[in-house]
Amino acid sequence: MESFLREGDVVLVYIDDKRRFIVKLTRGRILGTDKGYLSHDDIIGLPHGSVVKTSSGVSAYLFKPLRQDYIHGMARSTQIIYPKDAALMIYLSGIGCGSRVGEAGVGSGALSVAIASVICDSGRLYGYDISDSALKVARINLELAGLLHRVVLSKRDVREGLDVSPLDAFFLDIPDPWNAIKGVSSALAPSAPLLVYVPTVNQVEKTVLALRESGVFGDIHVYELLLREYSVEKDAVRPKTRMIGHTGYIIFARRTLQVSSNNV
Amino acid sequence: MESFLREGDVVLVYIDDKRRFIVKLTRGRILGTDKGYLSHDDIIGLPHGSVVKTSSGVSAYLFKPLRQDYIHGMARSTQIIYPKDAALMIYLSGIGCGSRVGEAGVGSGALSVAIASVICDSGRLYGYDISDSALKVARINLELAGLLHRVVLSKRDVREGLDVSPLDAFFLDIPDPWNAIKGVSSALAPSAPLLVYVPTVNQVEKTVLALRESGVFGDIHVYELLLREYSVEKDAVRPKTRMIGHTGYIIFARRTLQVSSNNV
Amino acid sequence: MESFLREGDVVLVYIDDKRRFIVKLTRGRILGTDKGYLSHDDIIGLPHGSVVKTSSGVSAYLFKPLRQDYIHGMARSTQIIYPKDAALMIYLSGIGCGSRVGEAGVGSGALSVAIASVICDSGRLYGYDISDSALKVARINLELAGLLHRVVLSKRDVREGLDVSPLDAFFLDIPDPWNAIKGVSSALAPSAPLLVYVPTVNQVEKTVLALRESGVFGDIHVYELLLREYSVEKDAVRPKTRMIGHTGYIIFARRTLQVSSNNV
Amino acid sequence: MESFLREGDVVLVYIDDKRRFIVKLTRGRILGTDKGYLSHDDIIGLPHGSVVKTSSGVSAYLFKPLRQDYIHGMARSTQIIYPKDAALMIYLSGIGCGSRVGEAGVGSGALSVAIASVICDSGRLYGYDISDSALKVARINLELAGLLHRVVLSKRDVREGLDVSPLDAFFLDIPDPWNAIKGVSSALAPSAPLLVYVPTVNQVEKTVLALRESGVFGDIHVYELLLREYSVEKDAVRPKTRMIGHTGYIIFARRTLQVSSNNV
Repeated sequence: MESFLREGDVVLVYIDDKRRFIVKLTRGRILGTDKGYLSHDDIIGLPHGSVVKTSSGVSAYLFKPLRQDYIHGMARSTQIIYPKDAALMIYLSGIGCGSRVGEAGVGSGALSVAIASVICDSGRLYGYDISDSALKVARINLELAGLLHRVVLSKRDVREGLDVSPLDAFFLDIPDPWNAIKGVSSALAPSAPLLVYVPTVNQVEKTVLALRESGVFGDIHVYELLLREYSVEKDAVRPKTRMIGHTGYIIFARRTLQVSSNNV
Repeated sequence: MESFLREGDVVLVYIDDKRRFIVKLTRGRILGTDKGYLSHDDIIGLPHGSVVKTSSGVSAYLFKPLRQDYIHGMARSTQIIYPKDAALMIYLSGIGCGSRVGEAGVGSGALSVAIASVICDSGRLYGYDISDSALKVARINLELAGLLHRVVLSKRDVREGLDVSPLDAFFLDIPDPWNAIKGVSSALAPSAPLLVYVPTVNQVEKTVLALRESGVFGDIHVYELLLREYSVEKDAVRPKTRMIGHTGYIIFARRTLQVSSNNV
Repeated sequence: MESFLREGDVVLVYIDDKRRFIVKLTRGRILGTDKGYLSHDDIIGLPHGSVVKTSSGVSAYLFKPLRQDYIHGMARSTQIIYPKDAALMIYLSGIGCGSRVGEAGVGSGALSVAIASVICDSGRLYGYDISDSALKVARINLELAGLLHRVVLSKRDVREGLDVSPLDAFFLDIPDPWNAIKGVSSALAPSAPLLVYVPTVNQVEKTVLALRESGVFGDIHVYELLLREYSVEKDAVRPKTRMIGHTGYIIFARRTLQVSSNNV
Repeated sequence: MESFLREGDVVLVYIDDKRRFIVKLTRGRILGTDKGYLSHDDIIGLPHGSVVKTSSGVSAYLFKPLRQDYIHGMARSTQIIYPKDAALMIYLSGIGCGSRVGEAGVGSGALSVAIASVICDSGRLYGYDISDSALKVARINLELAGLLHRVVLSKRDVREGLDVSPLDAFFLDIPDPWNAIKGVSSALAPSAPLLVYVPTVNQVEKTVLALRESGVFGDIHVYELLLREYSVEKDAVRPKTRMIGHTGYIIFARRTLQVSSNNV
């Protein structure tokens, strides 16, 4: 029932919340940390979930990386999307195995990793960005997560239209989403959800008004998630003192059809 | 590119946020609402995403139901899990196509629907409850969502142990999760995540302390999500006046192994 | 040490959170509630803090009303300011005994009651509104709270300037505060705080930008308070399920002088 | 109408949110900052609200300090209470000019400064602590704020009872408030409010249960405030990225009498 770590496997070496390392196991290599080092050779062959000691005697867990571990450890060119936001967007989008999904801009590919991980090999993510360097970083991050084969990355300004259709969902994370609604709406299958992520209230306003004016989106909602983390000690439970006060707003909408009057 | 609604299809008839109806299309039937009625016959044959008018002239959208629509419209014997919480739990669990997952208690099956929707036909959800009536309701809800074939529902008190292993993740939503940790830990594969959902702070404390004392869980975190919904009108954007102030706390932990000392 | 309730006293009859009655004790009168009635005659002569029984045998406390009780029980023409917001605004304003304070618009006088209660008889609140009916309601509410003698209510559009100066603080609660900044700034004493209360983000933006552009305000901050109330039972502590998700935004700024260059 | 700064005055020198200095003006002295220095001699004689330039050419405002400025700049032996919490506690307590108030433990005196500032010279704050060093720090902070003459500081463990009565309100900020309820209740005037401040949920539970069991408190409520601060730029309004996620819980209750049955 146990699965053993082999050379070439990617493992999460977890010491504590500030020391989480995504490591590709390679014979002869050393993982150095300020809490001591670990030799890859000593890790290879151990079962997942093992607890090992660093050279300084500090415990480290060897976990099978989850999607959020890859994203957390990711090389980044831009702000990384937080798990709370990625989770809700993907959940609301309804995407799953086999889904055909669009995303713009991919940035460093954090959300792309989260999306690609749920569409299986039979699905396809069409990821767009206007920046060559962003696409390059996204490619690296998707490859490390073993998901690049599910993704078609293209340099494209989606405000000028899209080349695929019909998509089962679209994720829009660009500074002016209201300018991309026309292109995105023509790529989306009827009834398919659009998820927009923006950091400011002004972008929320412009996007929602543009969605309404487009006449081809319904069930429009705007959400914001606040995540509190708790500190638990015996007889002393309390929210942590510091928290992230804001990441971004999530806009949800579904593509509608304008049915000709004789149908109604 | 359009997909057309056929008899037997399940459709979301969306009038507004308070009028969302999950309807199985049946020739000759009528959907009655306080905003007028709609004949199933008039809906059958229309493309997804269509806008129709009720007998009172009110617009209604015909959407392909998403997981959250099924859950929202669900027959319920207990409190339904909110999308924000289901989304984060599923995201953090890392489950996907083919995953073998445990859940207790299933209650009315809301979280079961959310879980089953991501594991594909190749996955398996083992759902437990001590209540026959809960299992009955869960079965109905899973069937309506077309997901029952992915789920094995059993009457069992998981505090007395489990009959499957190794599982890729476990979702625990019972009043005293601390009493089920032993059984759940032996069913979980090494490194696999446990997600616990509890409404009170006292349950958080007892569960986290029990997880720590068990010695076989690491990377333990407690989260709480607050969801704000926004009202958007031109030049008047503001959070909605009323919100859900509390649903529950989410506890995340990963199964660890206790490695024998000569490995370290 | 006990103080006894006399005819003419105002008392808070508290049964539960939904049944809080501000009553002026009058011989011969009856307070009727859906939990039974209480005769004023039976209350007169009891000490503050007493517990009495209604005709239905339900307990009711006789409390000395606090500022928040008057405001909560107030006749209202507009939305009442919440204690959390009134409290922070008054605290940040630094007003106290003897302060000369401006307020516009007074609406139904809820914030006026809160302000007037801290300035003592030696202070003065200049309250403005453009609506005769609002001023009438405010007068009634200030009178019931016994604070009217500290307040000068005037019908005036403060966007067209003010007739008093120098004020120790100004509270601005009108739809377009940015149009009143010039008038308010000339009425405020140098270094004195301005507190603005607005419900939408758009008003926040316009007000803050106007304050900056005015060149005579510094230390500008925008706050929003979320209040969670907790339910406490033995072994079951949790935030209440429903909460007020939004009331308004509080803008704080201090009046500055533009010092002539030879001073600097 | 302008008031001019004189030697001996206390002034808030405000450069930005991280550079706020409470300064007692003394001829010949220099205020050094990492944004340049300011000579007290150059400040003396200027009107409040003036903008001056440091030696490095950075603007600094000269504000009349408010209560929150004293508290923010305070020497501290313990965690300082936040304005949002002090504001709500004082507001709900109903204290004002002439109030007789109790407080334990005073810690570094932050809440004492906030309380003393609203009770006028005719009021009296009885402040207790079991720590000599805390009382010493509190004394210094109250003196700097010019409020020491309104306060009687005593070394006393309030769990063993109090020596004053009847008080108009009591503020309790000790680790085990449930052990002080008996003493505090006998010191409080009937109908007078008790405000308790505790950091953990466990303390909330014990305190509320003890208040209920005492039989002499009613209208018991537990509050928690979350403060969001906003960043405002043209076309880019958003909550600040980082926020304080937790400070403490506020418990409110009113002292009741147990009336003998023949009164009812």
